[in-house]
Amino acid sequence: MQSMDDLFYALLEDVYFAETELLKTLPELARKTANRTLRQAFADHRDDTEEHLKRLEKVFLSIGQKPRGRTCNAMLGIIAEGQQVIDKVEDDAVRDAAILAAAQAAEHYEIARYETLRAWAELLGQDEVVELLSETLEEEKHADELLSWIAEGGVNESASERPQVAE
Amino acid sequence: MQSMDDLFYALLEDVYFAETELLKTLPELARKTANRTLRQAFADHRDDTEEHLKRLEKVFLSIGQKPRGRTCNAMLGIIAEGQQVIDKVEDDAVRDAAILAAAQAAEHYEIARYETLRAWAELLGQDEVVELLSETLEEEKHADELLSWIAEGGVNESASERPQVAE
Repeated sequence: MQSMDDLFYALLEDVYFAETELLKTLPELARKTANRTLRQAFADHRDDTEEHLKRLEKVFLSIGQKPRGRTCNAMLGIIAEGQQVIDKVEDDAVRDAAILAAAQAAEHYEIARYETLRAWAELLGQDEVVELLSETLEEEKHADELLSWIAEGGVNESASERPQVAE
Repeated sequence: MQSMDDLFYALLEDVYFAETELLKTLPELARKTANRTLRQAFADHRDDTEEHLKRLEKVFLSIGQKPRGRTCNAMLGIIAEGQQVIDKVEDDAVRDAAILAAAQAAEHYEIARYETLRAWAELLGQDEVVELLSETLEEEKHADELLSWIAEGGVNESASERPQVAE
């Protein structure tokens, strides 16, 4: 681990693992929520996450590496903490609050990591990689905003107030 | 774990543990960086973190509970991942990039958790608690902005461009 390239590659492996774990966890969160809007948001974000993994695979190829994950204890910790609480709660609204909290912690982890990866890709002059990471970063930020809106009771507001997915 | 009060208390314990771990880790990060600006930022944020712990203690008292931490595997994971990489790097600039990445992941974890805690305190009608959590949340966001600025090479820019601490 001697250069920015090594550092970039190691964090890429971390994020690849984190996205893979999230891909497995989102359908589980969708099953456990009683809130239709939240269930749909998780289904949509699962599709986004598949796309994020494909983009990461392109990034690995761009830097001449094979796509590979490396255990990310931070994401495992976020998911495990969420599951422990979610499985203890009986009330639907309280469980949904716990589910939203876990999902937002996961989103923030990804936002932090994609911001770092993008900054490093800029430093390394990898323009195509910067573009790929920027697209994902915007989608992660949008997902976090949507979760905040749902947490603030957005399901009861007019659908026209719902944050729009960026085209 | 049956009510929003229970959920709030459990997350408060999680964040109290996370802040305590960060308080121990910041001086270590400060020792390992070759960047004076970053070292000072960690020293300042260590002082902020002590203040955040005091505010959390006030929040515990507000809800009639004793301050207590509960193992936060997410924060432990972020810190451990950071340390593993940092200790492998020999080049100062590369190590500083790894240190900044670890610190920003920790900040984002805290931002996500304080946003959730604040939203729940609002729901619970705990105005004084909302106030305490808002103060810390603003400081965490400022810390993250300062780290981004340093990561983007801000140490070489004019000091007048440096983000100001909110009064």
